[in-house]
Amino acid sequence: MQLLDGNKVAGIIKAEIAEEVMSIAAAGGKIPHLAAILVGNDGGSESYVANKVKDCEQVGFKSTLIRLESSVSESKLIEHISKLNNDPEIDGFIVQLPLPKHISEHKIIEAIDPGKDVDGFHPINIGRTVIGLPSYISATPFGILQLLSHYKIETAGKNCVVIGRSNIVGRPVSILLSQKGFDCTVTVCHSRTKNISSYTKNADIIIAALGQPEFLKANMVKEGSIIIDVGTTRVKSSSAKSGFKLTGDVAFDEVSKKCSFITPVPGGVGPMTRVGLLKNTLLAAKKVIYP
Amino acid sequence: MQLLDGNKVAGIIKAEIAEEVMSIAAAGGKIPHLAAILVGNDGGSESYVANKVKDCEQVGFKSTLIRLESSVSESKLIEHISKLNNDPEIDGFIVQLPLPKHISEHKIIEAIDPGKDVDGFHPINIGRTVIGLPSYISATPFGILQLLSHYKIETAGKNCVVIGRSNIVGRPVSILLSQKGFDCTVTVCHSRTKNISSYTKNADIIIAALGQPEFLKANMVKEGSIIIDVGTTRVKSSSAKSGFKLTGDVAFDEVSKKCSFITPVPGGVGPMTRVGLLKNTLLAAKKVIYP
Repeated sequence: MQLLDGNKVAGIIKAEIAEEVMSIAAAGGKIPHLAAILVGNDGGSESYVANKVKDCEQVGFKSTLIRLESSVSESKLIEHISKLNNDPEIDGFIVQLPLPKHISEHKIIEAIDPGKDVDGFHPINIGRTVIGLPSYISATPFGILQLLSHYKIETAGKNCVVIGRSNIVGRPVSILLSQKGFDCTVTVCHSRTKNISSYTKNADIIIAALGQPEFLKANMVKEGSIIIDVGTTRVKSSSAKSGFKLTGDVAFDEVSKKCSFITPVPGGVGPMTRVGLLKNTLLAAKKVIYP
Repeated sequence: MQLLDGNKVAGIIKAEIAEEVMSIAAAGGKIPHLAAILVGNDGGSESYVANKVKDCEQVGFKSTLIRLESSVSESKLIEHISKLNNDPEIDGFIVQLPLPKHISEHKIIEAIDPGKDVDGFHPINIGRTVIGLPSYISATPFGILQLLSHYKIETAGKNCVVIGRSNIVGRPVSILLSQKGFDCTVTVCHSRTKNISSYTKNADIIIAALGQPEFLKANMVKEGSIIIDVGTTRVKSSSAKSGFKLTGDVAFDEVSKKCSFITPVPGGVGPMTRVGLLKNTLLAAKKVIYP
């Protein structure tokens, strides 16, 4: 069994990005600049955004954090978005989700200029991904694909089971892996799937993205399979200093004995997701997707 | 075995649409108006567009056919599209595909106002379909869903195999059937799938959309399955007056003995596809999707 080491691969990609930023700077070009809008002060969102800012610093990007009160109106938030859409200094930006209940997330996402939508959540980017046009691919699917490709995992003709049909992980990764170039035969399982084992037992590649700690057990996977664990649930732990540990959707101890490759949690998909946003920001700065 | 009679169901839906048009007219409202742009005079495209115009007449829609020389430039075609985008008389329109090689189909599709994109080919409509927002769903997937729903075929928890990953049939129908409301467990098979029988033999519902005449044989399906045949290939036939007959992707004679429901070709998905465009045009006229 080999670990798919997200920390290591993310480090390599970040170093490549940092190098590219240095050569842009050396040539007197514009330094990539990511902005993030954070509404309210939800603990999870605070730390996600803080990490994103830190990642930007590490690779030499500029970053701007815009903090808004949780009471901000939808129209006021859209005003901020319009300003970022029209600001040539900002290459790409994100609006950290979730948003307060009085604001429509869909409306907010559709207000973002697709060319600056480095989260890849705008329907136009999703639609372009589906039909195979250049697009910003959202960070987690992007990270998973990069990880598979780094470890030279053959995907063509493989039976791939994705567990979970969320708009930001399960659905897009299932579409991407089924497309030309990856060529997996992909099955999407979800909460209404009957006898999920009958699918996972035949899978060469399993992507677990349902958010249910240790859902995937050894008796559900076949010998030699490849396991990507997207789950990150905080579970109480007496051994952890914080009293919590991040737990994946895969029962790592037992499944890792049976599979050929597996991502750890933490240190697998997580760091790759963070790098996905950086990569999209670089693409935005270089105007690769929307020339 | 029961036939899924597309002609019959399409007839029912057309009658409903016609009735709605009559009540719109009676109330002095605006009659739905579909426009179609036909570039060149490819035989297939000519007859498709002629059928669409005929369908409009049958339900009481207005229709406008715009014919352009096959030598028309991309920018000139986009000018025509802009005019239709801005014409309040036109509720929805289509640009008949394929287009001559010197014109980018993607560019043309992205030039169409998403609110008038009754073919549902604009990336924004595809993206909105993927994330479950109101959208124009392209005609064939729409027709398939209507057919399943008319015959009250239970989809939740069913194992569904879609053969084919095209942007206009396989991909969207696989996404839709996998979403909440339909809740199938969907596998997308394609040209790179290994041992396709191992998937189809376990399927409760098979959607064959690969365009390979009589590909799906009886030994590839399980007893009692539901078969949707999207294929329509013209195959030479000595018994047909024209010398050709339309042949589906399913070996109908042998598969029909084994399954519980099956669509004939012709008379199954084809007429439902035609009705899909009418339904989208009505939605456009009523501004249901983009209020």
